[in-house]
Amino acid sequence: MKLYETPSTPNCLRVSLFLAEKGLDIPRELIDVRAGDNLKEDFNNKSVNGLVPTLELDNGEYLCESIAICRYFEEIHPHPALFGTSHLERARVEMWQRIIELQGIMLIGQAIRNLTQIYKDRENCIEDWGHEALLRFRKLLPTLEAQLKAHPYLAGDNFSVADISAFIMLKMATKLDIEIDQRWPSIHQWQKNIQQRPAFAGLG
Amino acid sequence: MKLYETPSTPNCLRVSLFLAEKGLDIPRELIDVRAGDNLKEDFNNKSVNGLVPTLELDNGEYLCESIAICRYFEEIHPHPALFGTSHLERARVEMWQRIIELQGIMLIGQAIRNLTQIYKDRENCIEDWGHEALLRFRKLLPTLEAQLKAHPYLAGDNFSVADISAFIMLKMATKLDIEIDQRWPSIHQWQKNIQQRPAFAGLG
Repeated sequence: MKLYETPSTPNCLRVSLFLAEKGLDIPRELIDVRAGDNLKEDFNNKSVNGLVPTLELDNGEYLCESIAICRYFEEIHPHPALFGTSHLERARVEMWQRIIELQGIMLIGQAIRNLTQIYKDRENCIEDWGHEALLRFRKLLPTLEAQLKAHPYLAGDNFSVADISAFIMLKMATKLDIEIDQRWPSIHQWQKNIQQRPAFAGLG
Repeated sequence: MKLYETPSTPNCLRVSLFLAEKGLDIPRELIDVRAGDNLKEDFNNKSVNGLVPTLELDNGEYLCESIAICRYFEEIHPHPALFGTSHLERARVEMWQRIIELQGIMLIGQAIRNLTQIYKDRENCIEDWGHEALLRFRKLLPTLEAQLKAHPYLAGDNFSVADISAFIMLKMATKLDIEIDQRWPSIHQWQKNIQQRPAFAGLG
């Protein structure tokens, strides 16, 4: 098994945090996305979506999409469970994972790419959409604050992959100077608690 | 249990197709999204993301996000399995589900909303992003064609929730006059096969 990754990217960090929480370590190969390694034919023959992270399995098959890779590791190493432990908890984790993905990561990602134009060598940037996406992203923060005021973790009582996703989302947001401070006391406290976990050491 | 839905919306259709494939029927309550029912406080007290579909559980809890609702039904009614039956198949389903969601539904949804301005009463529309999102959406079609040339269903040998998602994605695309014809022979054949399933009757 081998993980193709650009360690600094949010989705690769997401898988690395997940593996660290599971106590797993697997071989890795560097793909330099900024240099365009993922645009080359050799990588595209491996990765269906052309993106990192991509996991090479021992049977020669490849899995892309960060959460699909995480789910595969959850399947083969179920403990500690990071996708929930009961029928209802698994549904709650999926719900929060998707809210973070679709109303959070997707929007802040579009804001970053359209406003900073970091990949203007390979994509058309629409600045007006960057501003709009950023406005919409900000609307998620009150929802997060309310949930984390009522529960220690996003999906309830237990740490899950949804917390990992929310952590990398807020790390992305710092690129556009969105910092979680005392205006969001419950998110701020949750973030401090998360940073105490061994897997998150050095990501303060 | 009760499902709050606007039956004509893609995400509500997705849950309805999933329930039909499972052979399940549950009580439903109409929320008229076009009339703004989902913007009212009563609904927002139920649905974390303020969107349909939202499922009310017998314990008084609410689940939103279409795929979280589907996963809950998969948990409590595992057969027929629509999220995969083995470790690897469940990862493959997640991979294709996410590719369809993030590189397909998300982009065609943004294209539709920014170009048709169907919800201009409640959101700022950026026409240039609509055009860009549509261009990016089109890039998914060769990927789908290649996968469906090699396999009968998106995640491989078995019908899954990823096929339901791809079906509603292509139904969305017809709103911007993207029709799957003989230029995409494998997608076209897959679509014809899917339409033969009893759950999909009348959606041709």
